[in-house]
Amino acid sequence: MVETVHLRLTAPHLGDNTADLDRLLRALRHRGYHPLQVHPPTVGPLVQRIRRFDYDVTAVLGYTHCHWELLDIETGAEPVVPLAFAIDLGSSRLAFYLLDLDNGRILAQDSVANPQIPHGEDILTRINFARNDSGRQLLQKLLVDVFNETMARMLGDHGFAAARVYAVATAGNTTMSHFLLGLDAASICREPYIPVANHFPLHHAEGLELTIHPRALVFIFPNVGSYFGGDLIAGILASGMHRSSDINILVDVGTNAEVVVGNRDWLIACAGAAGPALEGGVVERGMMANPGAIDRVRIDPESQQPSFTVLGDEKPLGICGSGLIDLIAEMFMAGILTIQGKINTKVSSPRIVTTPDGPAYIVAFADETADARDLMVSEIDIGILLKSKAAMYTILNVITRKVGVDFSDLKHFFVAGSFGNHIDPAMAIRIGMIPDLPVETYQGLGNTAGRGAAMVVLDRSLLGEIERVCRQITYVELNVNMELMNEFRGALFLPHTDPTLFPSVRIPERAYGRDD
Amino acid sequence: MVETVHLRLTAPHLGDNTADLDRLLRALRHRGYHPLQVHPPTVGPLVQRIRRFDYDVTAVLGYTHCHWELLDIETGAEPVVPLAFAIDLGSSRLAFYLLDLDNGRILAQDSVANPQIPHGEDILTRINFARNDSGRQLLQKLLVDVFNETMARMLGDHGFAAARVYAVATAGNTTMSHFLLGLDAASICREPYIPVANHFPLHHAEGLELTIHPRALVFIFPNVGSYFGGDLIAGILASGMHRSSDINILVDVGTNAEVVVGNRDWLIACAGAAGPALEGGVVERGMMANPGAIDRVRIDPESQQPSFTVLGDEKPLGICGSGLIDLIAEMFMAGILTIQGKINTKVSSPRIVTTPDGPAYIVAFADETADARDLMVSEIDIGILLKSKAAMYTILNVITRKVGVDFSDLKHFFVAGSFGNHIDPAMAIRIGMIPDLPVETYQGLGNTAGRGAAMVVLDRSLLGEIERVCRQITYVELNVNMELMNEFRGALFLPHTDPTLFPSVRIPERAYGRDD
Repeated sequence: MVETVHLRLTAPHLGDNTADLDRLLRALRHRGYHPLQVHPPTVGPLVQRIRRFDYDVTAVLGYTHCHWELLDIETGAEPVVPLAFAIDLGSSRLAFYLLDLDNGRILAQDSVANPQIPHGEDILTRINFARNDSGRQLLQKLLVDVFNETMARMLGDHGFAAARVYAVATAGNTTMSHFLLGLDAASICREPYIPVANHFPLHHAEGLELTIHPRALVFIFPNVGSYFGGDLIAGILASGMHRSSDINILVDVGTNAEVVVGNRDWLIACAGAAGPALEGGVVERGMMANPGAIDRVRIDPESQQPSFTVLGDEKPLGICGSGLIDLIAEMFMAGILTIQGKINTKVSSPRIVTTPDGPAYIVAFADETADARDLMVSEIDIGILLKSKAAMYTILNVITRKVGVDFSDLKHFFVAGSFGNHIDPAMAIRIGMIPDLPVETYQGLGNTAGRGAAMVVLDRSLLGEIERVCRQITYVELNVNMELMNEFRGALFLPHTDPTLFPSVRIPERAYGRDD
Repeated sequence: MVETVHLRLTAPHLGDNTADLDRLLRALRHRGYHPLQVHPPTVGPLVQRIRRFDYDVTAVLGYTHCHWELLDIETGAEPVVPLAFAIDLGSSRLAFYLLDLDNGRILAQDSVANPQIPHGEDILTRINFARNDSGRQLLQKLLVDVFNETMARMLGDHGFAAARVYAVATAGNTTMSHFLLGLDAASICREPYIPVANHFPLHHAEGLELTIHPRALVFIFPNVGSYFGGDLIAGILASGMHRSSDINILVDVGTNAEVVVGNRDWLIACAGAAGPALEGGVVERGMMANPGAIDRVRIDPESQQPSFTVLGDEKPLGICGSGLIDLIAEMFMAGILTIQGKINTKVSSPRIVTTPDGPAYIVAFADETADARDLMVSEIDIGILLKSKAAMYTILNVITRKVGVDFSDLKHFFVAGSFGNHIDPAMAIRIGMIPDLPVETYQGLGNTAGRGAAMVVLDRSLLGEIERVCRQITYVELNVNMELMNEFRGALFLPHTDPTLFPSVRIPERAYGRDD
């Protein structure tokens, strides 16, 4: 999106008295930068710089998809290294990538919690908070401030000047993008679910009060709808599925599960509430994949003794999404959980206890945990998780059936987000969350939103590709009907009421042991 | 440059949940407005208006030569009458034309003195005044303030809202356009005479602090060089000479005389100091064509008695350009002036007097004048005027010879400016200021700068035409050389040392009467 062009202009003389700005633009047009625009207030300062650098200049140009813009003039005496930020605008965390636009390298990366969380852990609370102007402005300011602080820190750590940042791309869900731009998000969550805009105009840093180069281009990924945001568009870009002749599927499990199926010819997408149980805050001891979170669990089927790993090698404090999936899968395999998702209290183990809330399984005793409390998972927690996994499986089933694709037709099953890198597909299959495909089909892609954002600042041709992807996507509303409810009920079982769907899962005898 | 489009958008519903902005832009694209941009900070307010007007809206669109811009959204319930101003940005006077963009009619016109005059009667003094930032900012602010005051007054007089003005076009010389934009004009008058810019980006009203619609497009006519400004480009547009197969000439007599010769295939231009004597301030009793100025003079050859008309039917205070040309021509015909431009003191008349500054002719005695002083013209004044007319004739001669065109090849001789409407070509021929062509060749065009500016706001295709005219023009520097000086000396005579150039001028015997 940004190019630097070194020009040694012929100095003006009586035989060639073209005006200075025209002289520069003429040289740039000859190099193919056309149409080329200059922001009116910058004309005077830019021409001053041309004269000061004695017509030996480096022009910094930004591409806006419609035309080029002359962003700045630097001396031609030394090379200009243009920088950019790619930002994953998550509702929980923001991830920043500092890029060298000359060679495409990531110079630094960092992530921070979304500073809006105090005004709403979940997005609906934040939308409600932003219903009036002051709330909306505050949520925007929180983002802008944390952008500025984080970018300044990352630049400072590496000795770069903020004015060298000529582009930013951010990918977030529809609501987060509205918050960043200070747009009214209220109608996003109200029938008929209409955002203010799906495609946002290209912004400039000064317009958003970002303290980088004032004319830096700020690209905000477009949405397809209220429930299909720019983060997913960036994810499609990062997965490359829109260029493939094979049929692939991309799943992003966040607060919502968002799913895209398709290839270079067609893309179909849907989203549904499936994920919150995996994010922490819903399951009692659930937490984000931060230090102190149990992320892997194995249970010895004989002794019912668990073993686990904890992120950051600390004492366990809670259990993150991948840990929960492992735990359920292993409890199931060890016969501690029935196919209905109940704790088999017939199994005698000091870890199976009965609490006022019903039966529970102690993963770690108080003497092992960070907060000196038993870290346990109750039947209620398990019920919540099973609803999430059932929702996920149902969504996958519905969308593939809608396009007449069998799970076995899928070449790759991409899982976006850090979650995608953490979960063990074999475990997720065992609980019937994802289809029973060869595990190599599953591929965690990491932060696809950040990666897609980085790709577009490095390759302006992707601006057009993004438009094509947006036009290609058919977004399907999942209407809650009887058929869907039946599917969902079947998927609540471990792994499913129809075990032939999961031939690889060997159901232990004990899992049938108790039917309440 | 501005269009209004009435749209009844389908309100969003579950079956068509396109975002509101995208819904509007989609409808506009279907009508051919593409590419179409929205200024980022306006997205929120514009979508609010779409919703408030319940999807029955009138979109106001501006054309920027590169793309369309959505300027505003109005209710679809009543028609929107878009307005514009065309402004002649003269160094002496500013002329304003208020236009109805629907039917192209001039709704009002007004003119005011250039408020920069106190900081420099002539443009060089002003350039000098603007050499530092504060001077430059002051000169810009004076223009912006007088723009705002005059536009507000004209709008108020007719009951129009300022927010209905969606476009402004201004045509001025290179320096005036630089002043309006707050650009450094110092290099315009310093070798090698390089303006900051010849082509200015399209501005928006808010960027220049014009108190009309904030997103109103502000088009500033491009220059061809330091001495060939946007006013002349507008003049060419107004004359239509760039579309004609005939060869025509356009002359604008201001502080400089600016001349363009050509047709639809080629245009050649030059400029030279020729005019100041005709503008007032140089000839002692010279004045602008304002009330109190003698604008027509006849002298009875027998009695040497003058008769004259005064602008505004007042007592005479001075004499304007056309009056001076008449006066010299009539004095010459009455034998009061010799072919060398000297007052023939052999003629006995109470009006021919000798002053400490030499001989003079009294046009009006003290008892007839506004200031109760004899209104006289001295030989010195006449000498100044003859230099101007000689410069003009020389420029015309040089430029036509340069392109191998004979005066008789000219189909039309266009004279721009109010001056063009005032002068009597027969009189100007008599003094040898302009070639001895049939008087019907001469055509006064009035305010061509204002007319050209009005044309472009009414017809966006002219934006491209203006670019073509700029590319077609070859600007010729008049280098002062011996040949030119000889030409000039010959042209100092009445009508010329070579009277065969002016066969229609019948030189009276007495004009040879005295050769000092």
